[in-house]
Amino acid sequence: MKRVGIGVIGTGFWGENQVRVLRQSPMANLLAICEKDEKRAKEIGAKYGVQWYTNIDEFLRVPTLEAVTVCTPTQSHLRVGTLAIEAGKNLLVEKPMTGEERAAEKLAKSARKAGVKLLVGFIERFNPGVKAVKDMLRRRAVGDVIIATGRRVARWPVRIGDVGVVKDTAIHDIDAMRYLLEDEVAAVFAQTGSLRTHAYEDYAEIMLRFKRGATGFIDANWLTPRKVRTLIINGSDATISLDYITQEITLENSERLVKPHTPWAEPLKVELENFMTTVLRDTNEAPSGEDAIKAIRICDAALRSGNSKALVSLAAN
Amino acid sequence: MKRVGIGVIGTGFWGENQVRVLRQSPMANLLAICEKDEKRAKEIGAKYGVQWYTNIDEFLRVPTLEAVTVCTPTQSHLRVGTLAIEAGKNLLVEKPMTGEERAAEKLAKSARKAGVKLLVGFIERFNPGVKAVKDMLRRRAVGDVIIATGRRVARWPVRIGDVGVVKDTAIHDIDAMRYLLEDEVAAVFAQTGSLRTHAYEDYAEIMLRFKRGATGFIDANWLTPRKVRTLIINGSDATISLDYITQEITLENSERLVKPHTPWAEPLKVELENFMTTVLRDTNEAPSGEDAIKAIRICDAALRSGNSKALVSLAAN
Amino acid sequence: MKRVGIGVIGTGFWGENQVRVLRQSPMANLLAICEKDEKRAKEIGAKYGVQWYTNIDEFLRVPTLEAVTVCTPTQSHLRVGTLAIEAGKNLLVEKPMTGEERAAEKLAKSARKAGVKLLVGFIERFNPGVKAVKDMLRRRAVGDVIIATGRRVARWPVRIGDVGVVKDTAIHDIDAMRYLLEDEVAAVFAQTGSLRTHAYEDYAEIMLRFKRGATGFIDANWLTPRKVRTLIINGSDATISLDYITQEITLENSERLVKPHTPWAEPLKVELENFMTTVLRDTNEAPSGEDAIKAIRICDAALRSGNSKALVSLAAN
Amino acid sequence: MKRVGIGVIGTGFWGENQVRVLRQSPMANLLAICEKDEKRAKEIGAKYGVQWYTNIDEFLRVPTLEAVTVCTPTQSHLRVGTLAIEAGKNLLVEKPMTGEERAAEKLAKSARKAGVKLLVGFIERFNPGVKAVKDMLRRRAVGDVIIATGRRVARWPVRIGDVGVVKDTAIHDIDAMRYLLEDEVAAVFAQTGSLRTHAYEDYAEIMLRFKRGATGFIDANWLTPRKVRTLIINGSDATISLDYITQEITLENSERLVKPHTPWAEPLKVELENFMTTVLRDTNEAPSGEDAIKAIRICDAALRSGNSKALVSLAAN
Repeated sequence: MKRVGIGVIGTGFWGENQVRVLRQSPMANLLAICEKDEKRAKEIGAKYGVQWYTNIDEFLRVPTLEAVTVCTPTQSHLRVGTLAIEAGKNLLVEKPMTGEERAAEKLAKSARKAGVKLLVGFIERFNPGVKAVKDMLRRRAVGDVIIATGRRVARWPVRIGDVGVVKDTAIHDIDAMRYLLEDEVAAVFAQTGSLRTHAYEDYAEIMLRFKRGATGFIDANWLTPRKVRTLIINGSDATISLDYITQEITLENSERLVKPHTPWAEPLKVELENFMTTVLRDTNEAPSGEDAIKAIRICDAALRSGNSKALVSLAAN
Repeated sequence: MKRVGIGVIGTGFWGENQVRVLRQSPMANLLAICEKDEKRAKEIGAKYGVQWYTNIDEFLRVPTLEAVTVCTPTQSHLRVGTLAIEAGKNLLVEKPMTGEERAAEKLAKSARKAGVKLLVGFIERFNPGVKAVKDMLRRRAVGDVIIATGRRVARWPVRIGDVGVVKDTAIHDIDAMRYLLEDEVAAVFAQTGSLRTHAYEDYAEIMLRFKRGATGFIDANWLTPRKVRTLIINGSDATISLDYITQEITLENSERLVKPHTPWAEPLKVELENFMTTVLRDTNEAPSGEDAIKAIRICDAALRSGNSKALVSLAAN
Repeated sequence: MKRVGIGVIGTGFWGENQVRVLRQSPMANLLAICEKDEKRAKEIGAKYGVQWYTNIDEFLRVPTLEAVTVCTPTQSHLRVGTLAIEAGKNLLVEKPMTGEERAAEKLAKSARKAGVKLLVGFIERFNPGVKAVKDMLRRRAVGDVIIATGRRVARWPVRIGDVGVVKDTAIHDIDAMRYLLEDEVAAVFAQTGSLRTHAYEDYAEIMLRFKRGATGFIDANWLTPRKVRTLIINGSDATISLDYITQEITLENSERLVKPHTPWAEPLKVELENFMTTVLRDTNEAPSGEDAIKAIRICDAALRSGNSKALVSLAAN
Repeated sequence: MKRVGIGVIGTGFWGENQVRVLRQSPMANLLAICEKDEKRAKEIGAKYGVQWYTNIDEFLRVPTLEAVTVCTPTQSHLRVGTLAIEAGKNLLVEKPMTGEERAAEKLAKSARKAGVKLLVGFIERFNPGVKAVKDMLRRRAVGDVIIATGRRVARWPVRIGDVGVVKDTAIHDIDAMRYLLEDEVAAVFAQTGSLRTHAYEDYAEIMLRFKRGATGFIDANWLTPRKVRTLIINGSDATISLDYITQEITLENSERLVKPHTPWAEPLKVELENFMTTVLRDTNEAPSGEDAIKAIRICDAALRSGNSKALVSLAAN
C-alpha cells in the first residue's frame, strides 16, 4: 500500500495522540513533527522515534512530506495553516478550524486556490457509534426527528486553551447534529456563563432551530464532575441513544429496545485514516472547510445569543 | 381524626382515580360525585359505593360538603370552579387550572374574595422523588444549578382533551422547575408543532431562561413510543437524575454515585391529602392559584414563541 | 360467560390478595371466604363485600361453590385440602402444596380419586416474563442451555410461617427451572443455614444437576436487603435475563441485545384465571399435584444436603 | 529509583502484553525476552526494542537479570520455571502455575530452597475493583458473607492452550474468592463438559463450600457470546457487585446504593509492579506458590467432581 508522507504540527496532549496513532498506522509514513518547545519536541521525538523540528519552515521542507495535521493553539491555526498551504501540503486542522469565521473563510479559500485538501478535526464523525446512528436515521428508523439532545460535560479544573466551552466542546455536537440531521441551523438561542475561574465561558446551553423543523439542544460545560458525552435523538417512531465514549447505541420503539453490538474503534485512528485516504485517492474533503465555517458561525451565534440574551438568526447559513 | 367532607366533579379517567384514592383515604369523607354523563355517573357511583349527581347545583348542596376537586375538561374549569367557589367550597382544580391566564386570574380572585382554598393539581410536587430532589438542592448538593432538563414523552394515538402538549404535559415540568429552582422564568424560546393527527400541538421543545441564570429545557411530546418522564439537574458540583415514574433518584459527584432508597408513594394520594390538610388546618395553599397563573403564563409564552419563532420575554413574571 | 362459584380458605396476607383479584375477575363468582380468626373474617368480608365463615364445614356447604383456593398455613394444607376434596370441590393449593412429600402424594391421590382438579400455586409460571422465556427456549434462542441461575432474596425481619426459605422461596425457582428446562433434577447439592432469628433456615444455596446435563443454581434468602428476583439462562449461543418483578426480559447474543416490550400483567390474576379455566373447560391441571410433589422432593433433597453436607441423588424423580 | 533487571519467557499474546507494560514501567529494566519461535522473537524484539533469545540457557545468562516472568504454555512451566530457579532468578509464573498439583509443589519447593521469589499470575488480585471489594469486606460492609458468585464467560471459537476452562478461566474466580473471603474450600461440586470442538472442557459450573460456611459459585465458559466477568457478594446486610472489566463496584444496603468512583488501572501493570517490589524490597510473595497450589487443588477437585458426578471433599486444604 502507498503510504502518505505525513507530519504533525504542535505536539501537546492532542498532538501527541496523533503522533501515537500515526506511528502505528500502516497508511502513514510519519516523517517528522514540529513543536516550538524544544524540550517537548525532543521528548516526543525520542519517545516515538521521529525526527523533530522547532522551526516550521524547516519542517515544511522535509522531503516527501505530503500532509500535515495542525494541533497548535486555535489562535495560530490561520498562520500555521496558511504556511502549510503555501508549501503545498494537504492539511487536517484541529477544531475549531480558527477562532473566527473570517479566518476560517480565508484558510478555506487559500486551500481551494492552492489545490490542497483541507479537512477539519470533527472527530465524532468518525466515531463508529455516530456512523451507526447516521445509518439508522437514513433508513428512517426513528420516523421524523423531533429533537436531538447532546450532553457533553466534564470537570476541567484548569483549562489551558484560547477558546471557551462553545468552540472547544459544544462545537462537536453542533457538527454532529448538522451531519446527522443533514440540515442547517436557522436560529440559535443560548445561555452561557462562567462559574469557575475560567478565562472563557465554562458552560453553554444552546438551542438550535433547524431549517426543516427539528430542534437541537446542547448542554456543554467544564464543570460537572463525571464525564458524560451522550446524544439522544427523539423521533415520532423511536428513540436513539448514543454514548460517544462507549460507542453503545440503543434504538427503542414501541415493540422493543435493541442494542446492536458494533465493534469499538478509536475515532482518532479512523479520522486520520480518512484524511490519508482523501489525500491518496483525491476524494472530496469531509468534514470540509465549509463544515468548519458553518460550525464556527453557529458557535459565534451561540456566543452572541449568550451575551445579548437575544435569539440570533442565521438566515444565510 | 376529623375527616373532610369531599366530592369529585368530573369522573373521567383522572376523576375516577381521585374517587378511588379518596374512597380509601382515612382523611376523606367522600360524600358524592358529580358527572354530567348519567351512565358514567351511575357506573362510578356503583363501583365505589358513592352518591352521584348529574346536576352540579344539586351536588353543591350536599350537606357537609366542604371541598371539591375539579376534573372536568379544561374549558369548563372557570365555570365549574366559580360555581363551587360561590357555594363556599374549597377546591383543587386539575392542571391546567384554566386554558387562559385571564380565566385563571378570575378564578384565583374569586377564591380569595370568597375566602376558600384554591389549589391546582400540579401532582409532581407530591412525587416523593421531587421532594427528595428539593431537599438535595436546598442543602446545595449540586452546587450552582446550571440546567434542569425535563423529558416527558409517551405515545397517545388519539388524545381526547381541549389543550395541547404544552398545557397538558410540559406544564408539569414548568411547575416542577419553578418549584425546585425557586426562581421565576424571564424568557422562553420554543419549537412546537403537530406531527400526527392531533388537534393541538403534539410536541414542544421549550428552553426557559430563569432570572438568576439557570436554564430549563423541556422535551415533551405525545409521539415517542415508550413513556419517559425524567428530570436531570446539572450543577457545578454534582448531577441529580430523577425518574418520575419509578421515583428513583441518583446523585453523582466526583467521588461517587448514590441512589438513596426512598419508599415509593402514590403522588395522587399525597396530593389529595395535602389538599385536605390545607382545608382542615387552614394553612397556605401550595401549589396555589398564583402558581397556576404563572405556569399558564409560561405555557402561553411557549406557544407564542413556537408560533412566532421568536423569543418571548416574561419581564413581569 | 359462565362464572366459577369460588371461595378462598385462609385470608391472611396472601389469601386477601386472592380475594381482591377474584372480586374483580369477570370469570369468578366469589361466593364466600373461610377464615378461622373471626375478627379477620369479618374485616375481609366487609372490605370486599363477601360472605364469611369461620367454620370450614359450613363454608364448604355454600351452594354452587365449585372451587376453592387454600391459603392457610402449610401444615394445614393436607387436612383442609382433603376436606375440600371430600366435599367435591376443585382446588388450588398454595405452595408448598404440603410440608412433606408423603402428604402431597396423599392429597394428589385423593383428588384423582374424587375426580376434582388439583392445582398448586406456582405463580411464577403465570408471570408473562416466564412465558416469554419459555417461548425463547422452545425456539432455541440460546442454543444449548448450560445453566439457569435464580436469585430470590429480600429481607424479612420476622417471618411468620411454618416452612423455611427452601420450601417458601426457593421452591419458586425449582418449579420455574423444571418448567422452563423441561427436564428433571438428578442430584442436589446445597448449603443452608440460619443467620438471623428465624425458626427455619433463612438462606439456601442450591445447585441442581438436571438429567440432560444442564445446571440449575438458586440463591435464596430472607436476609439481603433490597428485594431481587432474577433468572439468568446462559446458553451456548445467547443469554436470557429475566427480572421477575418488572417482567423485563433481555436476550443477548453475539450480534445484539434485545429487550422485547411485553405488557405487564399481574401473575396472580393470570394464575387464578388459569385455575378457573381448568375447572370450566375440564382441561389438564398445570401446575399439577405431580409438579407439587416433584418440587417438594427437590426441596427435601436440598434440605437433606444442607444438613448432611453431602450430595443427594434423586434417581427416581 | 532502583530498577529490576527483568526478562519475559514466552511472548505469545499474553507475554507480549507483559513486554509492553514492562517497557513503559519506571521500575523495570527490561533486559531481554526469550521466545522459542525465532520469527516471533525477532518481531517482538524489534517492535519493543529489546534483545531476544530463542535459547533459554543463553537468556538466563544475561548479566544483571534478576527476575523473569514465565508466559509459556502451562505444560512447560515446571521445566522452564525450574531452569530459572536454578539460575537464581526470581519468577512470576502465569496461571495456572502448573497443570498438576504435584508439579506446583515441586516448583514451590525448589524456589524456597533456592531462596528466590516465586509469585503466580493471579492478576485479578491487582484489579483495583477487587482491592476495593476486599476493603469493604474487611470493614464488614456486607455483614456475614452468604455467597460469592462469579461469572466469567466469553466466546472462544478456537482455544489454543493445554488446559480447559477450569484451570484457564475459573481459576481466577477460585483464587479471588479465597483471597476475598480469607477462607479455604472444604468441598467442591461441579458440572463440566464440552459443547463445542474444544479439546478440553469448555464450560464449568462449580459450587464451593468454604470452611466457615460461605458458598462460592462459579459459572465459567468459552461459549456464551458477550464477555461477562462479574462478582456478586451477597451478605446478611448488603450486596457488593463488581464488574472486573470496567472495575465498577456497587454496594447496596437497605438505605442506598453507592458506586464509589475509583480510578481505573491496568491490573497487569499493578501485578508486575507488585512482583518487582517484592524482589526489590524482599517482601513476602503474594499470591504465592502456596496460593497457586491451593487453586490447582480446587481446580482438580472440580474436574474430578465433573467427571465422577460426585461431591469432592478437600479435607486437608
